[in-house]
Amino acid sequence: MKPSLPQGTRDFSHEVVYKRQYILQTIRQIFERYGFQPLETPAMENIDTLMGKYGEEGDKLIFKILNNGLDNPNKEQKTREALEEVFQGKWSKQLTERALRYDLTIPFARFVAMNHGSLVFPFKRYQIQPVWRADRPQRGRYREFYQCDCDVVGSSSLINEVELIHIYDQAFTSLQIPVSIQINNRKILAGLAEICGGQEQLTDITIAIDKLDKIGLEKVKEELTQRGLDQAQIEVIEQYLNIKGSNNEQLTQIEQLLSESKQAMLGVTELRYLLDFAKDSVKSVQLDFTLARGLNYYTGTIFEIKASTVKMGSIGGGGRYDDLTGLFGVKDVPGVGISFGIDRIYDVMEELNLFEGKLSQGTEVLFFNLGSYEIQGAYPVIQKLRQAGIRTELYHEPVKFDKQFKFAEKKGIPYIAIIGSEEITDNKITIKHLPSGWQEQMDSTNIDHIVQALHTQREDK
Amino acid sequence: MKPSLPQGTRDFSHEVVYKRQYILQTIRQIFERYGFQPLETPAMENIDTLMGKYGEEGDKLIFKILNNGLDNPNKEQKTREALEEVFQGKWSKQLTERALRYDLTIPFARFVAMNHGSLVFPFKRYQIQPVWRADRPQRGRYREFYQCDCDVVGSSSLINEVELIHIYDQAFTSLQIPVSIQINNRKILAGLAEICGGQEQLTDITIAIDKLDKIGLEKVKEELTQRGLDQAQIEVIEQYLNIKGSNNEQLTQIEQLLSESKQAMLGVTELRYLLDFAKDSVKSVQLDFTLARGLNYYTGTIFEIKASTVKMGSIGGGGRYDDLTGLFGVKDVPGVGISFGIDRIYDVMEELNLFEGKLSQGTEVLFFNLGSYEIQGAYPVIQKLRQAGIRTELYHEPVKFDKQFKFAEKKGIPYIAIIGSEEITDNKITIKHLPSGWQEQMDSTNIDHIVQALHTQREDK
Repeated sequence: MKPSLPQGTRDFSHEVVYKRQYILQTIRQIFERYGFQPLETPAMENIDTLMGKYGEEGDKLIFKILNNGLDNPNKEQKTREALEEVFQGKWSKQLTERALRYDLTIPFARFVAMNHGSLVFPFKRYQIQPVWRADRPQRGRYREFYQCDCDVVGSSSLINEVELIHIYDQAFTSLQIPVSIQINNRKILAGLAEICGGQEQLTDITIAIDKLDKIGLEKVKEELTQRGLDQAQIEVIEQYLNIKGSNNEQLTQIEQLLSESKQAMLGVTELRYLLDFAKDSVKSVQLDFTLARGLNYYTGTIFEIKASTVKMGSIGGGGRYDDLTGLFGVKDVPGVGISFGIDRIYDVMEELNLFEGKLSQGTEVLFFNLGSYEIQGAYPVIQKLRQAGIRTELYHEPVKFDKQFKFAEKKGIPYIAIIGSEEITDNKITIKHLPSGWQEQMDSTNIDHIVQALHTQREDK
Repeated sequence: MKPSLPQGTRDFSHEVVYKRQYILQTIRQIFERYGFQPLETPAMENIDTLMGKYGEEGDKLIFKILNNGLDNPNKEQKTREALEEVFQGKWSKQLTERALRYDLTIPFARFVAMNHGSLVFPFKRYQIQPVWRADRPQRGRYREFYQCDCDVVGSSSLINEVELIHIYDQAFTSLQIPVSIQINNRKILAGLAEICGGQEQLTDITIAIDKLDKIGLEKVKEELTQRGLDQAQIEVIEQYLNIKGSNNEQLTQIEQLLSESKQAMLGVTELRYLLDFAKDSVKSVQLDFTLARGLNYYTGTIFEIKASTVKMGSIGGGGRYDDLTGLFGVKDVPGVGISFGIDRIYDVMEELNLFEGKLSQGTEVLFFNLGSYEIQGAYPVIQKLRQAGIRTELYHEPVKFDKQFKFAEKKGIPYIAIIGSEEITDNKITIKHLPSGWQEQMDSTNIDHIVQALHTQREDK
């Protein structure tokens, strides 16, 4: 049997694990410096927790887990009936009581709802875990991928948005990825809809605006016509989409265009506060009134991150929402959150060569195996080096040096160490740096000196 | 709707996450110092990869994922037929093509089989990921739990066993858990079977011996009788189980008892080599001929770890196997591996209070919110402290001090910081340590001094 991986899933070998850990560790540390604390939830949730939360299309993409014990004869008839329901596009607990999490937001909401009595609010959590979606796999889209979210819930204060903007800024600065932090406010989009045909047009307008990047202004106007907006309304929307200039210039223009809408003006006030606050500390915040963030549950500030120098979709996004836990019976939990698109950030860093020189987690020194007696003499030195933090391997069998050299080269191990029978008697060790050819015999009892030699920068031949 | 967690699964809040990370980080670092490198495989595997690998009982406990797209009318008839197969205790790819991994060994074998052309052997990997089993949940047994494995494959050298013994020793030394590393060799058990009725009795003898701890010698003898062993044979097994004394004394006795079996003598030679090697460096290695490690695929050295001062099952185990990847069509890949039982290690550390003083990952200082103007003055100081590595929060709204003090107390934040309008003018900051009552006004531009104050050990009131 020739084994294979399920479509849309990946093995991560150590090179990839180290790069991903570097990204996640950088972000994790920043979250913690801002007072966010980690949460981990199980991979599987009760099916009722997940179904109906992501729209009809989402329900189909949730991986459902087959119940165990279906070979119990007493259950056969009911299970047959359950299957008929599945054919109708429904799910049935007779067949599947559990499913794999589809994102980190609903499990977080479920956690807050279950524990709201004992949590201290505002509650700041971050969560970095895989999620699963039965999407058609394609380049850059996987069926198992990590999400990396942080949210503050239980507070409507705009200071939370300020903090999240600074988290984005510091994370991408630390990763050395040049980005633009794009910002808008759903209240302004709502205000635009209010002025162009009323609140019930908000969805139509948002869907059309969301496509601007891909299809261009003319097509957006066509779509708006099809969606029943009239010439005068489309004209306002065109003016809206044509707002350009510095952040301040844009704010002035929007205030003129949407002055009739109280909602929009509230959105402008919020944006002005954030932009003022960030103006000295975060250079890359860019107002973008065309930013809509699809059809989700956001109600205030929305964010999106674009890499400045690499063509790639958004590498992060988020926003404010009014009601995290209402669906689970707990009211009045507003919040704001952001997420980092780990797979895309990885791709951007590869393209910009940003991992170079940052990862040095492979084995540092290979001890040659000269035989059973020599190993026993070398082993205490090996152990002391490991205790001093040096990643050290011992070749597994006493074969020709040639083969041992090749092993070191193939694994990219820079140093080799030799302790033969004479060296044991004299307390000596020979260390050689393969890329440069440097080598030296030294005192095997002076561990500090060996460590120092292993940490010396050397030029390749 | 009142939300709940699936049976046998857990949320990990930040206190637990930090403790678990401490354990995993300690072990991970030691793996890497011994030249092991991380591997991550997907949560789901093709169902053919998993089924038939864990015995009939195991097959039932594998969580299978329902195929998506079952509402496609063209598939209905076939899916109905598939369900009838499920009722017969078989699985059907028409219904389920994927399943959640049940352990880390089979996915590792699948990875090695798929990539053996490009891997450098001996290949040393570690893997720390959750696995899922549809076991009946009970105290200490979960349906989602982490495994933590390291294996060397492609080498039959005993030096690998030496390294694994030292990894165990260093890991538990670092975690400060007193343990006994119990060791045996399957060749000795095979030799015992050889002498007592032939190789075909190995399974019967192993099963019976494995129960010694739980049921005692008399019951083991009864079971052996039931399993068809005669008086003479049982007498040999009793002598075997009664071997006591120091490691060396035990080796001498086994050499006398099983001298007729070449296999057993090879096992003794291997054990003697390991015990000799470890005698100066690892004090806690204990020969235990009653150790059997159940009915698995081990063929040479076997290990098991017991906490010395806490009553708990084994907190680690492993051994040598002949053939990792044969099931996947790749021959001649012997190996040896060990695993750490993370959940039990966690429980032992809680019981021995070993986490105390080791985790300090909560927020260190809370800045009080005195209003919009004051926040803007304080924010640059907050940002500089974060850059200096201090975990810093800003209270989200300008409410009474009382409420802000309470927040700090509830969250266990030791320091609070106050920058009011006067302090802004004078470049001052007031820092107060809540547990001791210590407080001081200092220069807000001297970040080093503030950091030093925050890092000072202070006595509680």
